[in-house]
Amino acid sequence: MLCSFCGKREPVFFRRYSGEKLCKPCFLSSIENKVRKTISKYGMFKIDDRIAVAVSGGKDSLSLLNILHKIEKKFPKASLFALTVNEGIANRSEEAVNNVKEACERLNIKYVVASFKEFYGFTMDEIVKKIKDKKGELTPCSYCGVLRRKIVNKVAKELGATKVATAHTLDDEVQTIFLNFIHGDIFRAFRVAPKLENETGMFIQRVKPLCEIPQEEIALYAYFKNIKFQSVECPYAHLALRNNIREFLNRLEYKYPGTKYTIYRSFEKIRPLLKTSVKTELKKCEICGEPSSKPICESCNMIRKLLNQKFL
Amino acid sequence: MLCSFCGKREPVFFRRYSGEKLCKPCFLSSIENKVRKTISKYGMFKIDDRIAVAVSGGKDSLSLLNILHKIEKKFPKASLFALTVNEGIANRSEEAVNNVKEACERLNIKYVVASFKEFYGFTMDEIVKKIKDKKGELTPCSYCGVLRRKIVNKVAKELGATKVATAHTLDDEVQTIFLNFIHGDIFRAFRVAPKLENETGMFIQRVKPLCEIPQEEIALYAYFKNIKFQSVECPYAHLALRNNIREFLNRLEYKYPGTKYTIYRSFEKIRPLLKTSVKTELKKCEICGEPSSKPICESCNMIRKLLNQKFL
Repeated sequence: MLCSFCGKREPVFFRRYSGEKLCKPCFLSSIENKVRKTISKYGMFKIDDRIAVAVSGGKDSLSLLNILHKIEKKFPKASLFALTVNEGIANRSEEAVNNVKEACERLNIKYVVASFKEFYGFTMDEIVKKIKDKKGELTPCSYCGVLRRKIVNKVAKELGATKVATAHTLDDEVQTIFLNFIHGDIFRAFRVAPKLENETGMFIQRVKPLCEIPQEEIALYAYFKNIKFQSVECPYAHLALRNNIREFLNRLEYKYPGTKYTIYRSFEKIRPLLKTSVKTELKKCEICGEPSSKPICESCNMIRKLLNQKFL
Repeated sequence: MLCSFCGKREPVFFRRYSGEKLCKPCFLSSIENKVRKTISKYGMFKIDDRIAVAVSGGKDSLSLLNILHKIEKKFPKASLFALTVNEGIANRSEEAVNNVKEACERLNIKYVVASFKEFYGFTMDEIVKKIKDKKGELTPCSYCGVLRRKIVNKVAKELGATKVATAHTLDDEVQTIFLNFIHGDIFRAFRVAPKLENETGMFIQRVKPLCEIPQEEIALYAYFKNIKFQSVECPYAHLALRNNIREFLNRLEYKYPGTKYTIYRSFEKIRPLLKTSVKTELKKCEICGEPSSKPICESCNMIRKLLNQKFL
């Protein structure tokens, strides 16, 4: 049995939802081509964009960095750099940051590391300790997500980026759709989009070039490319509802190959409807000046809570 | 520790999502009151409705019959009867039909039994055999659902019913929302509603008085009320994707009590959006004359396939 693409080499991967059997080189180029296609389908980049690639040090974001670096070579007016957030999680963040540094040095890509501790005064470990004591209703992942997004937007802006690329895969997107449903804030899900609209100009436009690729295939890409990635699981992730959803979706995908795509397409049909119903006017946060739908932005509010001041 | 409602008796049920601990009588009346509330909230019935209660013989539908019978006594202009479909599943349908008969005789309610075999020429067992041979893409549940709905609508109409009440619980509704998402036909989910609009007048309006009650509580209601219900699992149900979804939702509900309600409310917010996007014009099926969005209705099309005639 030979590769469905080249018909020459032995296949190493069976793409169950399409029936294709692929050899290693054809698999790798299928992923890179899919990313190219996604970028052009959604008009993610302009020819002279300055792209901040949000790189956590995990396999998804390091693969994205590799692929975008390869694509960007053909666009001399465009430039990219890696932007990494050090959340301050013992035995984990350091390895992640080192992986990013190594990858960037190898690829000759500039990189910036911004840390929770410097930016907010707390590491993620300190935050988890504080919220545990207070028994708040938010999980560590909620804090981490909000605080990370703000750093990324702010630092990217300061460094003159015109786009932020994140490594959300098909799996992440489908999980988020379900997560929003389950949390009761389905209208939030309109943010699950390959390219977030930037009508106000207050956020740097975010794009997700991996949004149509299953996570499993990105992991395999990283493996075949010998990408050295974060090996330590986040110690707080087991607390997240997202894990239950991931497991459920993986089981469904296994039984019914293609399910993740179908859900994604289902959602694409209703996303425009959600968007027309959500009209949030952004203002500047009274504390940090970053865009916010409330007088005080979510991250400043979190930090205030952590500092034990009164909530607004 | 005493019942949160009466403060007198020992509780037998802990309602995790509300924190209430209920004794048996208070639990039973909490269910009946919830049904009354749902009926009035959605304006399900008029004072002189003739209600066909779709009763499968399972615990949900027999509980519904009991509760509606109790409520209906106070509305002398209204009437109700039970409508049962015998799908023709060996070792199962007969028990179901007998349970319905017994319940109706005990409550002094008229009942009608319509059978797949008489109506379509095939029992469900025969259909499953046929579709297995052909390896069609539809599951037994898809056939059964479509064929049952048509019989119920047609027979209820012939018997002068002005409403059809079905026993869909909160669980059924939430599962269907996910099922539609996963099947890629999210717009179909606009049918997940306590009261289906009947703008064309071609369908008898269907209402779901149990739609806001968790299935677990209905099961407990049936148990406390000594309702004798269907004991044999449907032999074809294990083939259904719905089972995976049910399991997932039950696990979530266990970990995060109230999740099913939250998903249901999430969906209520987007349902109106879906509805405005779906404008199906109903005509009469060319074969059976029943309402259909296509020239030949889904059930007639299924029967044609089974008869091995050409598809339209």
